[in-house]
Amino acid sequence: MPLRVVIVGGGAGGIGAAGGVKQAAPDAEVTVFTEFEDVAYSPCGIPYVHGREIDDFASLFLADKEAYVQAGIDIHYETRVTSIDPDRRTVHVEEPAGDIGDVPYDRLIVATGFDYADPGVPGTDLGGLYYVKNIRRAMEWDKVLDSVSRAVVVEASPLGLEMTTALAHRGIETHLIDPRPWPLADVADPDIMAPVEESWAEMGVIMHFTTKLEGFLGDRTVRAVATSTGELPCELAVVCTHKQPNNALARAAGLEIGSTGGLIVDERMETSRPGVFGAGDCVELPHGVTWVPVQGLSGSHAYAQGKAAGVNAAGGERRYSPVYVPWAMVAGKWMIGGVSFGETLAKALGIPYVVGLADGISRARYYPGVRKTRVKLLGEPGTLRLIGAQMVGGEGIKERADFLAMAVRTGVTLEDLAWMENVYSPPIGALNEPIALAAQNALSRLKS
Amino acid sequence: MPLRVVIVGGGAGGIGAAGGVKQAAPDAEVTVFTEFEDVAYSPCGIPYVHGREIDDFASLFLADKEAYVQAGIDIHYETRVTSIDPDRRTVHVEEPAGDIGDVPYDRLIVATGFDYADPGVPGTDLGGLYYVKNIRRAMEWDKVLDSVSRAVVVEASPLGLEMTTALAHRGIETHLIDPRPWPLADVADPDIMAPVEESWAEMGVIMHFTTKLEGFLGDRTVRAVATSTGELPCELAVVCTHKQPNNALARAAGLEIGSTGGLIVDERMETSRPGVFGAGDCVELPHGVTWVPVQGLSGSHAYAQGKAAGVNAAGGERRYSPVYVPWAMVAGKWMIGGVSFGETLAKALGIPYVVGLADGISRARYYPGVRKTRVKLLGEPGTLRLIGAQMVGGEGIKERADFLAMAVRTGVTLEDLAWMENVYSPPIGALNEPIALAAQNALSRLKS
Repeated sequence: MPLRVVIVGGGAGGIGAAGGVKQAAPDAEVTVFTEFEDVAYSPCGIPYVHGREIDDFASLFLADKEAYVQAGIDIHYETRVTSIDPDRRTVHVEEPAGDIGDVPYDRLIVATGFDYADPGVPGTDLGGLYYVKNIRRAMEWDKVLDSVSRAVVVEASPLGLEMTTALAHRGIETHLIDPRPWPLADVADPDIMAPVEESWAEMGVIMHFTTKLEGFLGDRTVRAVATSTGELPCELAVVCTHKQPNNALARAAGLEIGSTGGLIVDERMETSRPGVFGAGDCVELPHGVTWVPVQGLSGSHAYAQGKAAGVNAAGGERRYSPVYVPWAMVAGKWMIGGVSFGETLAKALGIPYVVGLADGISRARYYPGVRKTRVKLLGEPGTLRLIGAQMVGGEGIKERADFLAMAVRTGVTLEDLAWMENVYSPPIGALNEPIALAAQNALSRLKS
Repeated sequence: MPLRVVIVGGGAGGIGAAGGVKQAAPDAEVTVFTEFEDVAYSPCGIPYVHGREIDDFASLFLADKEAYVQAGIDIHYETRVTSIDPDRRTVHVEEPAGDIGDVPYDRLIVATGFDYADPGVPGTDLGGLYYVKNIRRAMEWDKVLDSVSRAVVVEASPLGLEMTTALAHRGIETHLIDPRPWPLADVADPDIMAPVEESWAEMGVIMHFTTKLEGFLGDRTVRAVATSTGELPCELAVVCTHKQPNNALARAAGLEIGSTGGLIVDERMETSRPGVFGAGDCVELPHGVTWVPVQGLSGSHAYAQGKAAGVNAAGGERRYSPVYVPWAMVAGKWMIGGVSFGETLAKALGIPYVVGLADGISRARYYPGVRKTRVKLLGEPGTLRLIGAQMVGGEGIKERADFLAMAVRTGVTLEDLAWMENVYSPPIGALNEPIALAAQNALSRLKS
């Protein structure tokens, strides 16, 4: 009898898992249950349709439903898994039309994703509060945006940065509120974010930092956001609070949950119950430098975790964790990115470090399109192993973050980076690579 | 008495060396002799002024002469070093106005650069033959280009690729001839160069491969280039032959010369004579994978070698070699690049390898500006250590080449790359990093 694998969730983690199972065991029976009408679209693209960088939502869909049928993956849309029974190895499933009953599995993969943290203030039941997630809802909201002249983005999270940039780009008067002193303050350093703030100001964004959300005001629909520094009239509030692991099901089934609220998994993505795997925003994983559990990473993390979980569930062998978390995004007129952590987070965690900082350039100084490229590197005192990085620039930030994540993982030192070989070609790279300059800066600080 | 350091050559190697000396020994007396009117401009920028991507030659200059005086570096322009006497530790120097005589040194740095290989055919004494090197001559040639309607670029070397692209961009009917079967054939693989050739065809370039140069025809000025496949009428021929180490001085002084014609130096950039160092296009260095000596690398290599030579000459300690040679450039409408070697060179050298190839993308599939990103990775059979890479794409090629050069240097494997963490953000990076896809492809070929 073929292996029966049930996957709860049709996002990047769940779809990655389905692919992973089929890769390792082509004959396995793979069943995916999702609450939504679709799978395999790019939710990460939604802000860019709102911002008019991308023409339409249709282009965000990756594969049609038939493609999954062809691949032997049985996807059940608009279907809820209401409980998991790991002893009997079944999940209980409901459709809008009624109860489906218990579905047996040999291996289960939990990829239930995230929910936005409840803002915990009055007025969250009003209309005009937008939680960016499902593409069908996004299509409806996009029409609403045509009549919005003022919007408030709640929290300068990664999504908050994208939505602020998108709404400003669309010509909406955009206010950004966040209780912390600068955007993305739990991840990025203030000197990295300063150019982003400047560019938002140029784009007309009105920023309100160290400003607490106190409530949403209005009758049936929001007409203002109440904050610790005053009321902000608006027709729309985009709620970009923390992405919390959606683990009600797993918790009820007795699967072990960690300090972040994420499912605890081993390096094979297996949970505390043998045969039950986890992937994506609902799991937590150890950070490779600090061994602190982290959660809520990117879509590529979710997809890769799903693949690993699927391969392992099907009897293969693929190790995934720990993670070093390369990240990068566009915010305002800049790209920001990094690996692991910056100075702010290192200090908060009590991690000792040495630091190097350089303002390099992305092309020859005289070549059109050249952009400033600021790189900050953190090294472990003594060994000088790279332990973190932060960057802001105009091009090549994603690729540098990928590079530096591998460098942290493999134990590359600031000494190695200081004297690294680099490409120099006027249209695409400067004589001095900014990473090397930052590493040289760290070494020279140590000498002085 | 302060340390007296004499540097022969004012290019990237020589100027890097001057900086290296001053960094390690600020009190040292640094004297630079150069045959030319200028130092510290970017010769690598010349093709882009010709191609009209850059507005003027003035922007290619980095620092004015006064800046070197301020930095305590004594530069003698339009001055020839005619001999080196390593026993007496002197160089003999001539100016246009006459003999200067012997100049003593404590440490000598030879950074005499390259000369284009003599094409070895009749007609090299004609006018209309352009060897791209000195910026003053380039300014004169740029005026000539205004009246050129047909040009022939001789050899599809890196400079040949840049000049072909530049002349076509300027609207000149451009013919490219090369005796080998595809452009950059001694470095790049044909599947990497194919998109470049297609884009050149779109730009109107007429390519003549497996075509030998037989001579330059004309009375006083070239009117045609004779080749093994026929005559090509033209008003200009750009000679982009191999860059040979310019080592007449070093050879006469008895310094040891290697198989490529480059000065042999140790990992501290010291030649066979203690106290005499070498840097830039006149030296050869071991390749870190093959230990075959290589020569004629990039401006950033020359500059970094100069820095290392200068630091060591001044009593500091900096190791430089071996090299892994990340490279990248714009050719036609593409960026090409790589590290170490591709399949063609590996085969020619008899190096066994496993290979992985993937056609990835540079951004989310639906994001404007997305470009195909082809990555080919070569691994050592058994260990699967990365030993070479080749790429063609539209963005992020330089940064990936830098990354992969460090990966080769530090022993990263195809297994590591296959499951690397990567940034995913629609405007700047795809869900699947092309490097990871290529590595996965290599692993799947090994299994099948």
